[in-house]
Amino acid sequence: MAEILKGAPVANSITEKLTREVAELKVKGVVPALAIVRIGESPDDIAYERAAMKRAEQVGVNIANEIFPEDISEAAFLDELRRINKDDNMHGILIMQPLPKHIDGLAAREMIAAEKDVDGCTQASMAGVFANTGVGFPPCTAEAAMEMLHYYNVDIAGKKAAVIGRSLVIGRPLGMLLMHENATVVNCHTATPDIPLITSKADILIAALGRLHSVTPEYTNPNQVVIDVGINWDEEKQGISGDVDFNAVESVVKAITPVPAGVGSVTTSVLMKHVVEAAWRKASQ
Amino acid sequence: MAEILKGAPVANSITEKLTREVAELKVKGVVPALAIVRIGESPDDIAYERAAMKRAEQVGVNIANEIFPEDISEAAFLDELRRINKDDNMHGILIMQPLPKHIDGLAAREMIAAEKDVDGCTQASMAGVFANTGVGFPPCTAEAAMEMLHYYNVDIAGKKAAVIGRSLVIGRPLGMLLMHENATVVNCHTATPDIPLITSKADILIAALGRLHSVTPEYTNPNQVVIDVGINWDEEKQGISGDVDFNAVESVVKAITPVPAGVGSVTTSVLMKHVVEAAWRKASQ
Repeated sequence: MAEILKGAPVANSITEKLTREVAELKVKGVVPALAIVRIGESPDDIAYERAAMKRAEQVGVNIANEIFPEDISEAAFLDELRRINKDDNMHGILIMQPLPKHIDGLAAREMIAAEKDVDGCTQASMAGVFANTGVGFPPCTAEAAMEMLHYYNVDIAGKKAAVIGRSLVIGRPLGMLLMHENATVVNCHTATPDIPLITSKADILIAALGRLHSVTPEYTNPNQVVIDVGINWDEEKQGISGDVDFNAVESVVKAITPVPAGVGSVTTSVLMKHVVEAAWRKASQ
Repeated sequence: MAEILKGAPVANSITEKLTREVAELKVKGVVPALAIVRIGESPDDIAYERAAMKRAEQVGVNIANEIFPEDISEAAFLDELRRINKDDNMHGILIMQPLPKHIDGLAAREMIAAEKDVDGCTQASMAGVFANTGVGFPPCTAEAAMEMLHYYNVDIAGKKAAVIGRSLVIGRPLGMLLMHENATVVNCHTATPDIPLITSKADILIAALGRLHSVTPEYTNPNQVVIDVGINWDEEKQGISGDVDFNAVESVVKAITPVPAGVGSVTTSVLMKHVVEAAWRKASQ
């Protein structure tokens, strides 16, 4: 039976540290603040927004909800982003994505200054992750996976890590973060012929392909730590499940994160960590 | 005996195409131009500069040599870069690196607009390589390795590629370029415990670690294509040799690039390709 690596203790550990840091910032007259920018009323967006707001309240971060109608024009939306980005009291900006099709997502994201890009969606943040310069921030979910590994003292340096997936929000940046910590990383993807052959040799397996229960025991080995970043609707369970076939894999690996209650529960803490860090950076200027 | 993949035919094929494109641009009244920015008199810099100038003459690209004394102040140098970057007739800028220690390299590189960054050294170009957006340009040597694979019809999609090295000028961007073409890529580095075990399973091996003759037959397999990006001083030979122990490896792999006369001879052609592309992009605006 694998060790079950839950997200809650990791999130709690981050939030406790943040609460202290926010108190220190308040002494300096700074209240860290995050603008959450949303277009329309997608239930997924609203659910994440609520989770973020709850976490923000817990650590003492202010939230500005910037909500716009589904039919806002691109020009008007970019103007709003310009206004939000200019606001000196706003340390971080999170744009709920994907945006409606009539809005150029790249143009919208590039309205955000690197130092406020707490979800790592700008080109500046991507270059920062690629080049390991500390400019901007990594995407929250990718960093949440790293926080899980750190909290549970999983060795990274000198180890083999296999990442299934190469998206810009998880697979690719997470591969970079692991390599910066001296793992030897392979990113598997849709054009990789025999994924289990590769992943079964890894010490750390990251499942970030976005397909329900597609990672089965043949992908793993008994000494492996499995981090499941998947969030899929599970018809049978009528709830959320991961990319890993948890019931089958749990009995054969060393450690595994559950879904829900795994990596997903750490994401909002990482978001707040970025907001607080953005506030610190600005206060130290 | 391996097939020897020489750089000259690749460079010629690129230059022929460029010569036609430059002629078309001249009809539109555009002469592609590259500023080569150099501080001091390093023999390596001067050698590369001469090679670039020769290639430029061949394809019809204008060169502006911007040479500054070793003791130029950072402020003065940044001012010069600002002036060069603003020049509408200059389509590309190449800064010879490394710069002297008293000059902030990052600040200098960031003076270059992404669209003129023909050697892929700005954060915008790095994000472009990472996210595959076509913004900026990849570093010339990384792309030269890709040109070798393309010219010699080496299958990339669905194949395993091992890159030894993770530098920002070769290893990391080349890993990305290979993945964008659907290879499954692993970057090995100084913290990778058993590199031969990994690389010997690859269909394509890229040697970019910068250590003379360090890649021996145990790193390879008989079906492997080996691309040697190393440029090292070989005391014994009193000349340049690669990262691969060519004499030992040549007899056991399917194909291999020599050093010299391999990837290195393609780099200046890729540089000119970027300059011409930058001129095209500007002319099409």
